[in-house]
Amino acid sequence: MEDALLDRFGTAIRRLRSERGWTQEGLANAADLHRNYVGDLERGKRNPTLHVVAQLADAFELSLSELLEDV
Amino acid sequence: MEDALLDRFGTAIRRLRSERGWTQEGLANAADLHRNYVGDLERGKRNPTLHVVAQLADAFELSLSELLEDV
Repeated sequence: MEDALLDRFGTAIRRLRSERGWTQEGLANAADLHRNYVGDLERGKRNPTLHVVAQLADAFELSLSELLEDV
Repeated sequence: MEDALLDRFGTAIRRLRSERGWTQEGLANAADLHRNYVGDLERGKRNPTLHVVAQLADAFELSLSELLEDV
C-alpha cells in the first residue's frame, strides 16, 4: 500500500545517506538500527517511532526539525 | 522511567495546545487520536510513530519540522 508520508521520509533518509556517501549498513551502524530496517525505511515500508527518527537525526548530526524539513 | 526526548515532545505538544486554548479532548478530536493517548503523550509516556506526529502537526497546521523545532 502506497504511503505518501513514509515515502517522503524514506526519500529524505536515502538522500541524506547518499550525500554522505554512506551505505545502508553504515547508516544502520551509526543509528544503532538493523540494516534491513534501514532498507525498509528508505522504501517507505516502515512507520518509525520518534525515538528511531531521533536516532537517525543523531547519526546524521541533524536536529529532528532539520531531518524532517522536506517530509 | 524518565525519557528526555519524549518529555520534550510532550512539553512541546502541551505548549502548542495551550497557546491555542484547546483542551486535550479538542486536540485529540482534531488529530483523530484518543483523549487518553494525548494525555499520555503530554506526560512523555508515549513514543509516537511518524504518522501520529504528522496527525498532530496537521491538527496544529504546522509542518513536521515546525512541530519538532524545540524537541
